[in-house]
Amino acid sequence: MSDHPTAHPRGFGSDNHAGALPEVLEALAAASDGTHAGSYGHDAWTERMEAAFARELGENARVFPVFNGTGANTVAMRALCQPWEGIVCAETAHVNVDECGAIERIAGRKLLTVPTTDGKLTPELVERRLVRFGDEHATQPKVVSITQSTELGTLYTLDEIRALSEQAHERGLLLHIDGARFTNAAAALGCSLGELAQGVDAVSFGGTKAGLVFGEAVVFLRPELAEGALFLRKQTLMLASKQRFVAAQLLALLEDERWRATAGNANAMARRLAEKVGAIPGVELTQEVQANAVFAILPPGAAEKLQEDWLFYTWDEARDEVRWMCSWDTTAEDVDAFAAAVGEVVGR
Amino acid sequence: MSDHPTAHPRGFGSDNHAGALPEVLEALAAASDGTHAGSYGHDAWTERMEAAFARELGENARVFPVFNGTGANTVAMRALCQPWEGIVCAETAHVNVDECGAIERIAGRKLLTVPTTDGKLTPELVERRLVRFGDEHATQPKVVSITQSTELGTLYTLDEIRALSEQAHERGLLLHIDGARFTNAAAALGCSLGELAQGVDAVSFGGTKAGLVFGEAVVFLRPELAEGALFLRKQTLMLASKQRFVAAQLLALLEDERWRATAGNANAMARRLAEKVGAIPGVELTQEVQANAVFAILPPGAAEKLQEDWLFYTWDEARDEVRWMCSWDTTAEDVDAFAAAVGEVVGR
Amino acid sequence: MSDHPTAHPRGFGSDNHAGALPEVLEALAAASDGTHAGSYGHDAWTERMEAAFARELGENARVFPVFNGTGANTVAMRALCQPWEGIVCAETAHVNVDECGAIERIAGRKLLTVPTTDGKLTPELVERRLVRFGDEHATQPKVVSITQSTELGTLYTLDEIRALSEQAHERGLLLHIDGARFTNAAAALGCSLGELAQGVDAVSFGGTKAGLVFGEAVVFLRPELAEGALFLRKQTLMLASKQRFVAAQLLALLEDERWRATAGNANAMARRLAEKVGAIPGVELTQEVQANAVFAILPPGAAEKLQEDWLFYTWDEARDEVRWMCSWDTTAEDVDAFAAAVGEVVGR
Amino acid sequence: MSDHPTAHPRGFGSDNHAGALPEVLEALAAASDGTHAGSYGHDAWTERMEAAFARELGENARVFPVFNGTGANTVAMRALCQPWEGIVCAETAHVNVDECGAIERIAGRKLLTVPTTDGKLTPELVERRLVRFGDEHATQPKVVSITQSTELGTLYTLDEIRALSEQAHERGLLLHIDGARFTNAAAALGCSLGELAQGVDAVSFGGTKAGLVFGEAVVFLRPELAEGALFLRKQTLMLASKQRFVAAQLLALLEDERWRATAGNANAMARRLAEKVGAIPGVELTQEVQANAVFAILPPGAAEKLQEDWLFYTWDEARDEVRWMCSWDTTAEDVDAFAAAVGEVVGR
Repeated sequence: MSDHPTAHPRGFGSDNHAGALPEVLEALAAASDGTHAGSYGHDAWTERMEAAFARELGENARVFPVFNGTGANTVAMRALCQPWEGIVCAETAHVNVDECGAIERIAGRKLLTVPTTDGKLTPELVERRLVRFGDEHATQPKVVSITQSTELGTLYTLDEIRALSEQAHERGLLLHIDGARFTNAAAALGCSLGELAQGVDAVSFGGTKAGLVFGEAVVFLRPELAEGALFLRKQTLMLASKQRFVAAQLLALLEDERWRATAGNANAMARRLAEKVGAIPGVELTQEVQANAVFAILPPGAAEKLQEDWLFYTWDEARDEVRWMCSWDTTAEDVDAFAAAVGEVVGR
Repeated sequence: MSDHPTAHPRGFGSDNHAGALPEVLEALAAASDGTHAGSYGHDAWTERMEAAFARELGENARVFPVFNGTGANTVAMRALCQPWEGIVCAETAHVNVDECGAIERIAGRKLLTVPTTDGKLTPELVERRLVRFGDEHATQPKVVSITQSTELGTLYTLDEIRALSEQAHERGLLLHIDGARFTNAAAALGCSLGELAQGVDAVSFGGTKAGLVFGEAVVFLRPELAEGALFLRKQTLMLASKQRFVAAQLLALLEDERWRATAGNANAMARRLAEKVGAIPGVELTQEVQANAVFAILPPGAAEKLQEDWLFYTWDEARDEVRWMCSWDTTAEDVDAFAAAVGEVVGR
Repeated sequence: MSDHPTAHPRGFGSDNHAGALPEVLEALAAASDGTHAGSYGHDAWTERMEAAFARELGENARVFPVFNGTGANTVAMRALCQPWEGIVCAETAHVNVDECGAIERIAGRKLLTVPTTDGKLTPELVERRLVRFGDEHATQPKVVSITQSTELGTLYTLDEIRALSEQAHERGLLLHIDGARFTNAAAALGCSLGELAQGVDAVSFGGTKAGLVFGEAVVFLRPELAEGALFLRKQTLMLASKQRFVAAQLLALLEDERWRATAGNANAMARRLAEKVGAIPGVELTQEVQANAVFAILPPGAAEKLQEDWLFYTWDEARDEVRWMCSWDTTAEDVDAFAAAVGEVVGR
Repeated sequence: MSDHPTAHPRGFGSDNHAGALPEVLEALAAASDGTHAGSYGHDAWTERMEAAFARELGENARVFPVFNGTGANTVAMRALCQPWEGIVCAETAHVNVDECGAIERIAGRKLLTVPTTDGKLTPELVERRLVRFGDEHATQPKVVSITQSTELGTLYTLDEIRALSEQAHERGLLLHIDGARFTNAAAALGCSLGELAQGVDAVSFGGTKAGLVFGEAVVFLRPELAEGALFLRKQTLMLASKQRFVAAQLLALLEDERWRATAGNANAMARRLAEKVGAIPGVELTQEVQANAVFAILPPGAAEKLQEDWLFYTWDEARDEVRWMCSWDTTAEDVDAFAAAVGEVVGR
């Protein structure tokens, strides 16, 4: 990973390379108003944030703000299944490849992974893992965890989620969404957050990539699933003492669906980039561009040349595949300048 | 716990009821400057923060910003000892009574607790726990963890720390400071952070109570202790993706020893409060007021009466003992008004 | 610990220094009858063993054979409480001092210890730990675990157990017995195993010290507590593949209350020893001798002198306190020879 | 799983359906000789067993007897790698599919699985997992764990093990063998145990399937790897109090290479079975028969018919694949009778 500063103020390395939304910073300042507030969630901002989530996701939603995505997933998995139960997920899932074994060591849960081509589970793929129920030697499948939008920039349609939900519930399992980019998905699908959570049992709701300084939330859509969550969140290190500052940021994101414009911008910029670079001979897009990521194979050497001026990461060195992420602050000018650079380097 | 808003904007419930320092909020805004920054610590703010800690604590300091204190302690304990090794601490230690079993379930370590009257370990108290070395049935003592300033508002002098450090190192143990209020201690002792860390192997350095929105740091004073810490911090859920925002806040605290004035204010207000209420017949101070906490026994019923207007917590119901915490934003007017209220209620 | 062979074939070091009952060895041989048997408990010996426990402890008993006592306790604690719930026990409890942190690292549970003088909890002692219910920062008390007979050779009467059981159940807790010497207790109290388990929710039933080659059992007295136990036992490493060999041994112990004679012998020998050495001037018995252990303070140097010829352990070096254990195979001649040696050494 | 008793005293369900070797039962009886022995390994049988392993595996071998295979693997993995390091293994590995998540929940380690056709890793397959070194988001590969003989009845040749060992050591990894059937492998390869362990860093040495009542051993081939093992074994619940009884059994297995005849018989019976059923039209052998397992696809319905009289398990229902295991006590008559039954049922 190269993180050197480049000539360009905004690159395509990751949507967590962006700063915070101005409204988020304002909300932080406003929440620090000189008065004291109860800690650990006993404050007015938390109340308002809970009300906001209830409006979006229904009265049954139980919301537990946490610090980061790995923490959200770890709390969720501890709450959703027993230690001898496992989580069906795609091999490419963040919980499987990017959390340094937190699910195994910290949650103490086993992942039951499935290879996919596009980062998406299907009922058929899940079915392969639904075996050996009742056999105490085998981890018992209990949770299906999907990432929305996926690590490969693809999306589950509402119908696809419904199908996974029905399968899960028929078989006695629960459906979880790792939603680090949940707002990108809702913006791309043109639906509400509530529609996107239909049939889902729990969501790791992402705030950081959507423009927060920090902050995510574990949301349970059925109250009974949240029974031990107050204790689990604390024990799993995810309880902020000055929680008003997490709540205020999440509020700023939810108010007036502010996320729709910002996540929408990230998606639009990715589409714009895909259109422009997709037209360049020698650039092969490898995944459908449905959210804010573009995956492409470049001619040998091109990525390295581009990385002299632009920050982005190689995804699969073996086949010269790169990943370009757009974020809430990516501009059309950023995209056009980068696409031009790609054209220049690849066209040589 | 009652967290209802009261007539008074600032109570004496906890130093984490206060908001954030203006300079911290400014630092957050400045760090969100429209440019992208590498995530997970690959950014310029982290570099500057590391330099600042090196200036304060020496070139050997290895700093790992984290989200909160329970997380800092959990990462530290995983780094400092093996799973079959234990941590000697006071029974009143935060790790023992206020972290919902995180040290046990998440770190997987055993605490070897010692009763104290003032929250402070001594070499004599530690000695009692230094037994059964080499016996595989017994948890092997490896870390001595002290809280500075303590949960009871008391302080270790530099000499007392030196004595514990010498004992620990002679016996093959390590000395850790749970420093949620490390800056309060340094301000109270009139020493530098470096002097306070003399002979110490690792510190959970507190930022939140000192005026941050959120943010602490695990600091290892010997590089070899930090060997696995990069991985441990990530796996233990404590790696912030937009770490520049933690680093910028810690920087704001360290620059020009900004903490000295703010933590100093909290300490001074506690002394002021102790002097005023200590003079009221019927109020018995139960601990020396050395940092920013005042512990007192009130006549029966007095606490409840006061809590109608002021937020603070009962510490030990059995003996009507209460705890009053002062924070960076507590004013002399707050203290005087509250002391007057105590006088009025107790004097009745 | 000195384990050197001595002039005497049987010492007073531990009841796990003894071999196996002849009937246990015969049962092992008989269970290896040339036919195949289902593994992991799918065998006829397990069925018979379950029936035997049902006769002793009632139809609601659910029995899970395991390998050893630390394993039994670890499985039990995982089954009886959630990760954020804790176990009230005496400071001297085996789970606290002799399991190398297994309860913390492997079960991931926190022990809420209470100092005692005789190794026994009382409702008053337990009450001190029943605080902070509902506070997510504090480990929630859920299990009261007592050792019967205790690590100090003392016994809970049936009335004392009833009182602890009533308290536990009134307060929403469960009562667990660490019964490494459960049969010693029943023999000493002259009651049945079922009477001894009255009001108890779960027992770690000891077989090894009672004369097995190896083998204990986790017994749940209420079926609902055993719901996940099949999986927990396997995951906690305690499922024997050739379980018929554990079942056959436990059967041999339960049949015709065989344990009553053997555990009774151990108890009787301890009483005999206590009477003889108690009469020697200079020997001070420090605990009531209610089961198969004798604790005594000897004049300085006496223990070391005796240990040249006899194997036993010093309990508390600071006050020259030693522990003498009797086992199923201790003979009156062993006791008399040893008491004579004590008299000779102390009398000098 | 059907475990009903059948007309036939010995089936082909598992090698852990067999009883114990007569010599093992004799050794147990002999070790219970009326004298006391130090517990937890401080006994003469353990000394002799250690000497026996040293003869077989070299002076550097460090042996830790444990109760069962899942426990052996869990202790080994805790000893061989850090919590953020992972274990490369075949998808079919016992640690992955048959230990109820013990490696994840109890060891707290992540498995990095590789699909195979025959249960065997190769350097090429391992290589795919040797990525992202130094990246704290990714589990760091540290151990390569192979099963010998494999869960599919196949064998690694000595050359194949050497190649994996060289790769592992060149890349800074360790090579572990899950040797539940280590003696079957040595017997099949006609080599000594020492030759089979050449280049290997640690072995989970299997005793139970080789004819013990219970008992395995974790063997480290390099002393430095065993440094914390004394504590890890105890904490991981695998320390037997009357360890003389595990040691005596392992001794009985090692003495005069007793295992060679018994494991050799199991292997020979599997070959005999393979030859006989392989000649039956309609029976397709699906794996090379190199140790004591036979895998075969039968015509639809045949397995169910056979299972009315014989105990064995279906391996892969989707393709009517069954597994037949032979054990130390399988006789030629057993095999011939069963092969005849197969011929009859399939020939219909």
